[in-house]
Amino acid sequence: MRIAVDALGGDNAPDEIIAGVLAASERLPGDEFILVGEGEALRSRLRDKPGNISVREASGVIGMGEDPAASLRARPNSTVAVAARMVREGEAEALFSAGSTGASVAAALLLIGRLRGCRRPAIATMLPFDAPVLLLDVGATVSCRPQDLLNFAILGGVFARKYLDIRDPRVGLINVGEEPGKGDDTVKEAHGLLATSDRVRFVGNVEGREISHGVADVLVTDGFTGNVILKTAEGVAREILNMVRGAVTASAVTKLAGAILRPQLRAVRDRVDPENYGGSFLLGVRGPVVIGHGNSLARGVENALVGIAHSGSSLSEDSERELAAAQEQQKGDAV
Amino acid sequence: MRIAVDALGGDNAPDEIIAGVLAASERLPGDEFILVGEGEALRSRLRDKPGNISVREASGVIGMGEDPAASLRARPNSTVAVAARMVREGEAEALFSAGSTGASVAAALLLIGRLRGCRRPAIATMLPFDAPVLLLDVGATVSCRPQDLLNFAILGGVFARKYLDIRDPRVGLINVGEEPGKGDDTVKEAHGLLATSDRVRFVGNVEGREISHGVADVLVTDGFTGNVILKTAEGVAREILNMVRGAVTASAVTKLAGAILRPQLRAVRDRVDPENYGGSFLLGVRGPVVIGHGNSLARGVENALVGIAHSGSSLSEDSERELAAAQEQQKGDAV
Repeated sequence: MRIAVDALGGDNAPDEIIAGVLAASERLPGDEFILVGEGEALRSRLRDKPGNISVREASGVIGMGEDPAASLRARPNSTVAVAARMVREGEAEALFSAGSTGASVAAALLLIGRLRGCRRPAIATMLPFDAPVLLLDVGATVSCRPQDLLNFAILGGVFARKYLDIRDPRVGLINVGEEPGKGDDTVKEAHGLLATSDRVRFVGNVEGREISHGVADVLVTDGFTGNVILKTAEGVAREILNMVRGAVTASAVTKLAGAILRPQLRAVRDRVDPENYGGSFLLGVRGPVVIGHGNSLARGVENALVGIAHSGSSLSEDSERELAAAQEQQKGDAV
Repeated sequence: MRIAVDALGGDNAPDEIIAGVLAASERLPGDEFILVGEGEALRSRLRDKPGNISVREASGVIGMGEDPAASLRARPNSTVAVAARMVREGEAEALFSAGSTGASVAAALLLIGRLRGCRRPAIATMLPFDAPVLLLDVGATVSCRPQDLLNFAILGGVFARKYLDIRDPRVGLINVGEEPGKGDDTVKEAHGLLATSDRVRFVGNVEGREISHGVADVLVTDGFTGNVILKTAEGVAREILNMVRGAVTASAVTKLAGAILRPQLRAVRDRVDPENYGGSFLLGVRGPVVIGHGNSLARGVENALVGIAHSGSSLSEDSERELAAAQEQQKGDAV
């Protein structure tokens, strides 16, 4: 697979991005990585680069605080714009950026384009519990129609098959209760669409407290709720781990006990580390577009790139086929 | 204060409810507790009851799975209906029930009535972090208008002053980003109302990962998002604590270290225990209506009752005055 990597996006660019690409290129000698950035600076850092890394010239990066669409238009040579055009032209099959999420989403929509049958895209992210679960949307589409939520279920299902190797992924709908009649009008109608679609293995409503229980492989919600879930889960996990750390350092005796437990406690922290997955996937656009955390370190970049390569290059085709099949069935049902 | 207590609501009724009332009545000899339930059974359990506990006859309870409004109409002598009518008639000033949340909300709306100036009620709950924060709504109003969110900010502010003894509570709006332009149309408009109201000390948007950081005393959101936040936070906290417990029991050596740390780790668990607050407050209706957890034990019931008594009896009056003042200002601004 050929992956275009935004070398300048993110708080730790370009050093951690380059280090992540180098690590991934060693693990994946059969894949290609194209670093998109300011060429001179990149080349000087990549003197002895492996043969599967190349460099593409671009200039400037779209910052976190800037208006994504306006900045893209004003700066067509920015890294994310150049990388997106490479995907559109077939020079690359996937895009990775740890820069502004808004800029990546805008570049995907304006320069790469949506999948047929998909009105709105969704950002899908893995929640790193003992029973990992794919949550979408976590922020691309804050206001959803019921049909969008059905589409997200289909996109998430295809992705879970290819990326997580789950043959028949179970899909749940985030809601405030288990019964079908719960939630606002959009969610109630989405429940009906999901329950009657033969392209989705729907397991019903899932409440917030069950998201870590392995009751579904894919959880569908609007981008507002999903964003709040993701950030609440990250914030609470960090808070509890900090409290445990505080407990361990309470006295000399507890510190000694803590030293004995350090490997185990570190393992807990590592298991819930968002960097395990390194990025979120923008689904509903042509070709995987992967959004790294803004503060990604080399390990996160490496894990994200390995994940992209693993998901394979037919994600868009498979997704369009499933979306079409689902809409075909809906039309048939309506007749 | 006179508090009507639904003796039959909740998974552990009536024994844990009675035990909680007994404990609260000892701590609060100047307050009165009226147990509403099947009188014979209650009286036999309360042979040596203190003078500030009395019993009121009612029969039957509305279950978790039943339609709240229909059940209330069909069974006017159910415990929550009798208790609500006592508040309406002035025989009690507050209602506590650990039974069906839907039944408590319906009883409050249909039998007690809303505050003037308040279209929809909100359930407010404490998130038990190191920096505790009041979150509302967590499920009474799943679809909100912008004005509802402003009203929730005012209700939450009055409550925080009386219940949490915070003189000038900071109010945040749950959103997917910090900038004012983030979120869906409802949230954007609510941001404008909050920013211009002189009855709210508005600190701006608050993202999911900041809810435990003490950036606000009161967090406002719609009942769908709030419910998902609350349950996600509870679920993730439990998940992480389970992982820590698993780490401690990995081997004989770690178990020994865990035994040393047990008091500290238990303190962490206790600090984030939802039972610390014992209940959520339904705001926007006349007279505090407090909804206990369905699985409340005596300690949760006791804490909830102590909290109600502490918040004082002028909550409704103060809330109506603030709502009116805020709406007066809005009218003035609109002229």
